[in-house]
Amino acid sequence: MRFKIDFSYDGSSFSGYQKQPGKRTVQSEIELLLSSIDESNVKLIAAGRTDKGVNALHQIAHFDFHKEITAYKLKGALNGRLKGDIYINDVELVDDSFHARFNVKSKVYEYYISTNLYNPILRNNIYQYCKKLNIKNMIDASKYLLGTNDYSSFVASDEVREDKVRTIYDICIKEEAGIITFTFHGDGFLKYQIRNMVGLLIDVGKEKIKPEKVKDILLSKDRKLVGKIAPAEGLTLIKINY
Amino acid sequence: MRFKIDFSYDGSSFSGYQKQPGKRTVQSEIELLLSSIDESNVKLIAAGRTDKGVNALHQIAHFDFHKEITAYKLKGALNGRLKGDIYINDVELVDDSFHARFNVKSKVYEYYISTNLYNPILRNNIYQYCKKLNIKNMIDASKYLLGTNDYSSFVASDEVREDKVRTIYDICIKEEAGIITFTFHGDGFLKYQIRNMVGLLIDVGKEKIKPEKVKDILLSKDRKLVGKIAPAEGLTLIKINY
Repeated sequence: MRFKIDFSYDGSSFSGYQKQPGKRTVQSEIELLLSSIDESNVKLIAAGRTDKGVNALHQIAHFDFHKEITAYKLKGALNGRLKGDIYINDVELVDDSFHARFNVKSKVYEYYISTNLYNPILRNNIYQYCKKLNIKNMIDASKYLLGTNDYSSFVASDEVREDKVRTIYDICIKEEAGIITFTFHGDGFLKYQIRNMVGLLIDVGKEKIKPEKVKDILLSKDRKLVGKIAPAEGLTLIKINY
Repeated sequence: MRFKIDFSYDGSSFSGYQKQPGKRTVQSEIELLLSSIDESNVKLIAAGRTDKGVNALHQIAHFDFHKEITAYKLKGALNGRLKGDIYINDVELVDDSFHARFNVKSKVYEYYISTNLYNPILRNNIYQYCKKLNIKNMIDASKYLLGTNDYSSFVASDEVREDKVRTIYDICIKEEAGIITFTFHGDGFLKYQIRNMVGLLIDVGKEKIKPEKVKDILLSKDRKLVGKIAPAEGLTLIKINY
C-alpha cells in the first residue's frame, strides 16, 4: 500500500534533503525509520529536493509499505522516533497511482530577508541582510519574472534538467517589522532558481540594478549576468499543490 | 577604561551564559576574544545570567580594557571573530562607575508559546506546545503575580540569593497567529522564576488550575505547588533598563 506524507524540517540540521553517503539528510533520516518499521528497504519519493540549509513547512513524499499499519499509528511511530528537527504533519493512505513528484501541480516557496539588526536567534530561518532595501523597486522588478519563461539565467551550472522553461504564477513581496517576505508560486522551480532570482532582486533593492534590467537578464539566458546567489537559510518550502 | 556592551545570542548554541569549565558558554566565548585582543585577562560582568537554551536580544555587560581602542573598532573586531551565534549590537565607552549588574533598574523578558502545528524551524526560539490554551484565564491569573511579592514559590531549589522579594511591574499576554507572547517587566527575576510562572500559567491555560488559585500558590511560598517548569527555549531576554 502507498502512503503520502506531509512533513516539515529545519534545514540547518541537515546536508540537504537528498540522500548522500555519509551525510545526515532528511531523506535518509526518514527512510531509515520507515525501513526499520517495515523491515524492508523503503524508498521515499519527494515532490522535489531542497538544498542544504533550506527549510520546509510542508514537503510531500510518497512511499510503498508492506506492513499492515494505519496512517495514524505510522505518524505516531515516526514522530516518536524523530529528533525534533523533522516533524511529520500528516500521513495518508493513498491510491497506488499517486506520485509525489509527477503529480505536482504547483509549488509555493517563501524567502525571508531581515533589514533589522543582525539576529543570531533567527539566523537559520531568515537571511540576516541587515540593511535597507528599496522594496518598491524590487516589486517592480519582480513583475518581469512572471509568466512562462526560459529561466536559464537563474539556474545552477549543475542543473541536469534540459528544459529550463517554467511558469511563475505570482511573486508577492511584503515588508512587516523590517522582515521582507517574498512568496513565489510556480509550476516548478529549477535548481537555485529562486535563490538566484532573490539575489538579483536584492541587487535591485540596493539600487545597483534598475528594475527594467531584470527583463534583459531573463531574456539573455546568461547566468553570468546574475550576481550573488541569496543564501539558503532564507528559503522555506511552504506548500505543494496536487 | 570601561566599556559597556550590548549583545544578542542564540541560546541553543551554548551551555548557558555563565562560564563553566569545559563547556561552550556565551561569557567564555566573549571573554576569550576580549582577552586575546587586550592581551590580558578580561572579565565580563553581565546584567544577569541566562540559563542553558535561553536566548537574548539585548544582554548588557561591562569590562575593563587596557588597550587603546575605539568602541567602534572593538565592535568590529568582536563581530569579525564571533561565529554568528553571538552578535555585538553596540559597544560604548562608559564611566568607571558604571556597573552592568548593580546599576540595573529593570529587565524585560519575553516568553513565546506556539499553539500551532509543531514547527521544527522555530523549535529553538518558541516553545512548541501545539495545543490550544485559554488565553483569557491566563491573563486573569497573571494579575495575581504583579506587584512586590516574595516569589519563593517560583524559584529554583539551587537559587543562592536569600531575598526572594522582587517587583513585577507588568505582565502582558498577547496572541497573534497562534503564537502567545508573554512580556514580563520587573526589577529583577530569580533563577527559573519566569519559566516557573509560565509553567503555572500554562496549567491555568489548560484549565487544570483556576486563575484565582495562582494567588494562593504565590502566597504559599511553596515551590511544590507549581507544576512543570516551562522549557528554556521559549524565553528571550529583551532589554535591560539602567
